[in-house]
Amino acid sequence: MGQVHGTNAANNPALRLKYVVDPRPEAAAAMAARHGAQVAPLQQALDDPAIAGVLVCSSTDQHLGHALAAVRAGKAVFCEKPIDLDLDKVRRAEAEFAGARFQLGFNRRFDPHFLALRQRLLAGEIGALESLHIVNHDPAAPPPGFIPTSGGLFKDFTIHDLDMARWLLGEEPCEVFAMASCLVDPEIGRLGDVDTARTLLRTASGRLCVISNTRRSGYGYDQRIEAYGSGGMLVAGNVQADTVLTLSDGGTAGAPIQPDFPRRYGEAYRLQLDHFASVLRGQGAPQVGYADGIAALVLAEACQQSVRSGAPVSL
Amino acid sequence: MGQVHGTNAANNPALRLKYVVDPRPEAAAAMAARHGAQVAPLQQALDDPAIAGVLVCSSTDQHLGHALAAVRAGKAVFCEKPIDLDLDKVRRAEAEFAGARFQLGFNRRFDPHFLALRQRLLAGEIGALESLHIVNHDPAAPPPGFIPTSGGLFKDFTIHDLDMARWLLGEEPCEVFAMASCLVDPEIGRLGDVDTARTLLRTASGRLCVISNTRRSGYGYDQRIEAYGSGGMLVAGNVQADTVLTLSDGGTAGAPIQPDFPRRYGEAYRLQLDHFASVLRGQGAPQVGYADGIAALVLAEACQQSVRSGAPVSL
Amino acid sequence: MGQVHGTNAANNPALRLKYVVDPRPEAAAAMAARHGAQVAPLQQALDDPAIAGVLVCSSTDQHLGHALAAVRAGKAVFCEKPIDLDLDKVRRAEAEFAGARFQLGFNRRFDPHFLALRQRLLAGEIGALESLHIVNHDPAAPPPGFIPTSGGLFKDFTIHDLDMARWLLGEEPCEVFAMASCLVDPEIGRLGDVDTARTLLRTASGRLCVISNTRRSGYGYDQRIEAYGSGGMLVAGNVQADTVLTLSDGGTAGAPIQPDFPRRYGEAYRLQLDHFASVLRGQGAPQVGYADGIAALVLAEACQQSVRSGAPVSL
Amino acid sequence: MGQVHGTNAANNPALRLKYVVDPRPEAAAAMAARHGAQVAPLQQALDDPAIAGVLVCSSTDQHLGHALAAVRAGKAVFCEKPIDLDLDKVRRAEAEFAGARFQLGFNRRFDPHFLALRQRLLAGEIGALESLHIVNHDPAAPPPGFIPTSGGLFKDFTIHDLDMARWLLGEEPCEVFAMASCLVDPEIGRLGDVDTARTLLRTASGRLCVISNTRRSGYGYDQRIEAYGSGGMLVAGNVQADTVLTLSDGGTAGAPIQPDFPRRYGEAYRLQLDHFASVLRGQGAPQVGYADGIAALVLAEACQQSVRSGAPVSL
Repeated sequence: MGQVHGTNAANNPALRLKYVVDPRPEAAAAMAARHGAQVAPLQQALDDPAIAGVLVCSSTDQHLGHALAAVRAGKAVFCEKPIDLDLDKVRRAEAEFAGARFQLGFNRRFDPHFLALRQRLLAGEIGALESLHIVNHDPAAPPPGFIPTSGGLFKDFTIHDLDMARWLLGEEPCEVFAMASCLVDPEIGRLGDVDTARTLLRTASGRLCVISNTRRSGYGYDQRIEAYGSGGMLVAGNVQADTVLTLSDGGTAGAPIQPDFPRRYGEAYRLQLDHFASVLRGQGAPQVGYADGIAALVLAEACQQSVRSGAPVSL
Repeated sequence: MGQVHGTNAANNPALRLKYVVDPRPEAAAAMAARHGAQVAPLQQALDDPAIAGVLVCSSTDQHLGHALAAVRAGKAVFCEKPIDLDLDKVRRAEAEFAGARFQLGFNRRFDPHFLALRQRLLAGEIGALESLHIVNHDPAAPPPGFIPTSGGLFKDFTIHDLDMARWLLGEEPCEVFAMASCLVDPEIGRLGDVDTARTLLRTASGRLCVISNTRRSGYGYDQRIEAYGSGGMLVAGNVQADTVLTLSDGGTAGAPIQPDFPRRYGEAYRLQLDHFASVLRGQGAPQVGYADGIAALVLAEACQQSVRSGAPVSL
Repeated sequence: MGQVHGTNAANNPALRLKYVVDPRPEAAAAMAARHGAQVAPLQQALDDPAIAGVLVCSSTDQHLGHALAAVRAGKAVFCEKPIDLDLDKVRRAEAEFAGARFQLGFNRRFDPHFLALRQRLLAGEIGALESLHIVNHDPAAPPPGFIPTSGGLFKDFTIHDLDMARWLLGEEPCEVFAMASCLVDPEIGRLGDVDTARTLLRTASGRLCVISNTRRSGYGYDQRIEAYGSGGMLVAGNVQADTVLTLSDGGTAGAPIQPDFPRRYGEAYRLQLDHFASVLRGQGAPQVGYADGIAALVLAEACQQSVRSGAPVSL
Repeated sequence: MGQVHGTNAANNPALRLKYVVDPRPEAAAAMAARHGAQVAPLQQALDDPAIAGVLVCSSTDQHLGHALAAVRAGKAVFCEKPIDLDLDKVRRAEAEFAGARFQLGFNRRFDPHFLALRQRLLAGEIGALESLHIVNHDPAAPPPGFIPTSGGLFKDFTIHDLDMARWLLGEEPCEVFAMASCLVDPEIGRLGDVDTARTLLRTASGRLCVISNTRRSGYGYDQRIEAYGSGGMLVAGNVQADTVLTLSDGGTAGAPIQPDFPRRYGEAYRLQLDHFASVLRGQGAPQVGYADGIAALVLAEACQQSVRSGAPVSL
């Protein structure tokens, strides 16, 4: 993700990429050279008063430490999700982030399609929201070696959808039930994780949400949201690679959907940094912050607990 | 077409099929038996005062004679298009049809998709109409033996589109230019006909219309209309055989479009007879009559003349 | 439903509608007159050796009695779903139906879109099936007076989806969890029912299925199925009333989806009777029979129990 | 267009924008500052041996002079279309461009949708090409003041489609017929131009092409291509601003199509410069050069002549 955010920052007319901090010297040098930045140790960047903000794209277990260091240095922080896999640790550090400008990398909040859906929802196009259906299917399973440090399906993957649910439901979920299987790769199961899940959420007023996840779709990166209200339905669909269709006696053949997150969410990543740039300019607080990270982690843990116990979890 | 209209008449709750008139005894008997009708010679049917209307579905060269006989017997007439291939003959007979209830079989005026397009057009959804694009592609070329008596591409096939253009343009075309090729079957060319054509029409106020025709699409029965106005565009698209899509790494695969006219225009044929039934009940005159048949033939002859001369034809 | 099936039987070239049995004399006479049938008491029809099959479309509480009478008279039976709301009663009668030709009215098994989806699934287009998503949203809530005798959302409405799940999953569900709310009409809640639900099913091998239900969509009759496999995804979408689109600066405006079951499933109802006609001709047993009715009822009761207990139910 | 190409050059990892040459000092300074370039007179840039290529984005009447100067200085040239409005002038200069690396700015050849269509066409997905339909509708008419120096609809606007036709037809057109009206703005007519046109092209083997143009669509920037072959049809459709749909009782409402050329062809402009960068690196000659500019101008003049004479023009 450092590649994605570093390049976007360098190309963003409202930002300037000054330092690249990376324990891998070659990667650091290559990125710095490409964008006219310089390689530096973290402390040098934090000590530089010209630096207004820090993009934390380190490995998940270092997110919290790096974010804390930047906040203590008075910098605004953009931090990749999740803050940390350990909810207790995240909660203990919460006080230090009070008042800090901290933007969490829930990129889908900046996707133009999901933004348009939310805008229509808030404009009342379907009346009162009653339920949601969120589809998040990865194209292909990660290598099994990734699983042990990933936090598992719910903390690593479903967490995006839990944030989407909170963003759209207009109420906090108060009940969680998850049903999960290991259908994609038995090795994932041997490592104690699942690869296919359906999660149900309910809010206090009775709104319902389904989250559909798989680690391997076999047909691309399936990213959709449906919202149902008292007066209609909203859907944000997949993006096809191009608009070309072939019609023949055999049928109608179109392009595949976007195959992966860089292509599906390229614009979302750019708009996410536009928002960070506006935070740096003092134009309001981050729209997605530390508390959102905690709330999503709480829900992800409830999913895990529901799978373990086979019962719904109340929050 | 006798099969189509006879079956629809028998199934129409507002009609009763009493006689089947057909020079082929076996076909006549089969249809009559299937629908509780009786086989009879034409004169018997025309002499029966219980008969209110006649469906003329004979071969094209007999349309006019049969229609005339029915009109003289005081019956309402539904007649398959074209009235005749010989414009002079059609014009000479015109006076006899004055005051008669004569409905010509331009079935597309009853297609629910084209009707919905026209309704939106008349409701002003795209402002003032400026141009049309009509696509009419047959799935597969007729056997060459059909060509000599067909009247040629323009009188046999394009004539439907010329009627659609008149129905939608709101003005009569005053200029016609057609460019045509023989790309599908060289035998069609040897018989003096063409199989692929693009026709341009212009009205007095400058409205433009393109008609796209081919005898063999290779992908089904392509039937579309686009209308362009001062405030937008309307399109009536093809109907797919079913809504199922397969998504895979290779792309998105859907069903073919409707393969032939019985499936594409099944509903139009039924609604066309509903209209004839309303004419029989005295609820107004036929919406498409003898004069429409003449006007379409005039345009079809102009297309032929334009192809022969290589120049536009003024009307 | 008697209107639908009676008319389809009368129009089906392989069937002849001989008797109309209806406690309401006027309705019986009208239907009989329209289709050349005669009004008769049930026993007369059952005693007539010319009668090969009976269509049971009475009120739900009479289905079982009428079906039993017809079976005892040696007739083939087409019976509207559900067999009965009381699972015990249905089970007690099961032995009497052993060997009978009994077709249950799960019409969606004959919908061309769902049939095409299943055909592609069985042809291996998406590899091994892993999960299903079934959407069944009614356009508008029934009058509250219907609720007390309906059997409730799951037995009256979800039961169709439970049958679809069984038909497509290739395995019986072994676990059921349902989350439900009353969001549409508080009167439905006061009567002890729910109007919005999400149901999860799991099979022994770990296949998952989500069923999405609401009594009032506000946008038409939403009927969709998605199937996910090891190599891709299948979707059967909604049918729009026509293909017309208006493009303007304000966006793209198309027709609504089909508004109700007669228009959405008109073809399915006809194909369902085609199948019954083939059963009458001795061409195989009904594809959906008494045991399918029991299995769907068992699942519907499990849904009810899950909502009551707030916990998953094992089968 | 200088803004578009200058920004894309600055952001292209394979290019470096060194000089900005612009007679308007403020615009030059702003662009130079934004991209770390310097403002300079043309001669300084041409004299600098470090400069490998020049992007000519001046006004149309200066294209040829600037391109010639750059070619004489030994630079590769990317030149906005058209080379010049005066075909004779373009032809007289042709010899000077022999051997030069000259890329003409027909950006649509680099549009991913049209590229995908062409790729499928060349891969034989629809068999032998028989006809084309090219739609190019501008969202809103230019101010009348633009008309006198524009070259008219055919040289200014249709020229893109004439190049698309040549790119896809696989043969040169040998006959042109255009029908045109002034329906959008009577002032355009008073200035001697037209704003709505349909153009027919035919090749020696009989392939047909329709070009549909209007200066004001009222619904966005309509850019589509359909190709018909012996075995099927290809279509490259419009791109909608987002994938969101609202379903309600009133119908299905989606986003508008892309409203203007910067958003519709943003990727094409970037890929066009990627190609120029590859030319600069010596990886082959430009795919669209001086001769293509002449050929498109010849066709545009034939369109003008056809409208003037009311007759087809042979080439």
